[in-house]
Amino acid sequence: MLLCDIGNTSYHFLQDNIDFKKDTNNFDPSSIKEEVHYICVNPKLKNILKDLDNWIDLSTKLDMSKYYETMGVDRMVASEAIENGIIIDAGSAVTVDVVKDGIFEGGFIYPGLNAMSQTYKNISSALDYPFNFDLDLNVLPKNSTDAISYGYLKTLYSEVTSHKMNIILTGGDAKKFAKIFPDAVIDEALIFKGMKKILSSKLI
Amino acid sequence: MLLCDIGNTSYHFLQDNIDFKKDTNNFDPSSIKEEVHYICVNPKLKNILKDLDNWIDLSTKLDMSKYYETMGVDRMVASEAIENGIIIDAGSAVTVDVVKDGIFEGGFIYPGLNAMSQTYKNISSALDYPFNFDLDLNVLPKNSTDAISYGYLKTLYSEVTSHKMNIILTGGDAKKFAKIFPDAVIDEALIFKGMKKILSSKLI
Repeated sequence: MLLCDIGNTSYHFLQDNIDFKKDTNNFDPSSIKEEVHYICVNPKLKNILKDLDNWIDLSTKLDMSKYYETMGVDRMVASEAIENGIIIDAGSAVTVDVVKDGIFEGGFIYPGLNAMSQTYKNISSALDYPFNFDLDLNVLPKNSTDAISYGYLKTLYSEVTSHKMNIILTGGDAKKFAKIFPDAVIDEALIFKGMKKILSSKLI
Repeated sequence: MLLCDIGNTSYHFLQDNIDFKKDTNNFDPSSIKEEVHYICVNPKLKNILKDLDNWIDLSTKLDMSKYYETMGVDRMVASEAIENGIIIDAGSAVTVDVVKDGIFEGGFIYPGLNAMSQTYKNISSALDYPFNFDLDLNVLPKNSTDAISYGYLKTLYSEVTSHKMNIILTGGDAKKFAKIFPDAVIDEALIFKGMKKILSSKLI
């Protein structure tokens, strides 16, 4: 079974528990001849894929009424993968979603690492520092690197931990954010788990 | 007495309790002939002002050892104005500084409203919404506008309120942020208060 999670920058495939990525800018989806179950948040690619018979859009098998209309399908599918917890998907955006007893309770969107880094730089060249993920979250900063790192990371930390739930980290920057959330479980295959769950429930 | 707080976009003057602003792009500081006590975070303007005899840099009268080297002088002067509290200065950046018993404890820097709005828009056109300052902070969002508003505002709220201190709001966007921090005191003249305090202590 071939699964694919398509974002703005890459096709993320899973075949027989091995995952690999292809750049959205130069990968030709018609080069794949076998059946692919996919989800896609990229409107342009979604339009191309709907004309390829072997690419099957898993979002059509999802009970969308549990979520909200403009919510990214990747967030829905990740939420399907768990029964209880708060999911942090750290990609170009950081999405944070709460699931209680299998029910999506709501969630929010925070800027991703690169986007936020650019933000500080754009405000002032005096704020052009890399984020310090080894920051001590218990100490108010007294230097510029930590002042922006705390601004980006501790604010997110304070909000996420206020929910007092198990934290599941996924997405391309999951390992970096794990330094801030040491008690979190990293599950880089969370979306694929959600996809498999939807597929198996529909097969029954 | 004429006071002036100079940022990246404007000269903010106070004369006899009346404040007014001039655009940094087209205001000529040599057009003022009387004595001006100022602080300036704009390196280019700082260089121009040091050659004008009637413009007196108040930062030279500040005990910098209480702060850190790369900290904005506006944050230092605002911190001088209070004995206890957490200051949110909402401008092009949102700076948050904690003062206990007159001692600066540290602080952090968060993106300002315009910068953060641009950030979401740059991540995806699907996130190009204005922030909702009337958001209910107690409810996890189930729509896109609230998902980014909560991401920007609730994270800041959770961190700031975790310090359990009196909140003082200042800066150009103070009134907007007051919707999120209803218990905060708005003090748009906080920096001028700090400047007056430094001036009076040096005159004694």
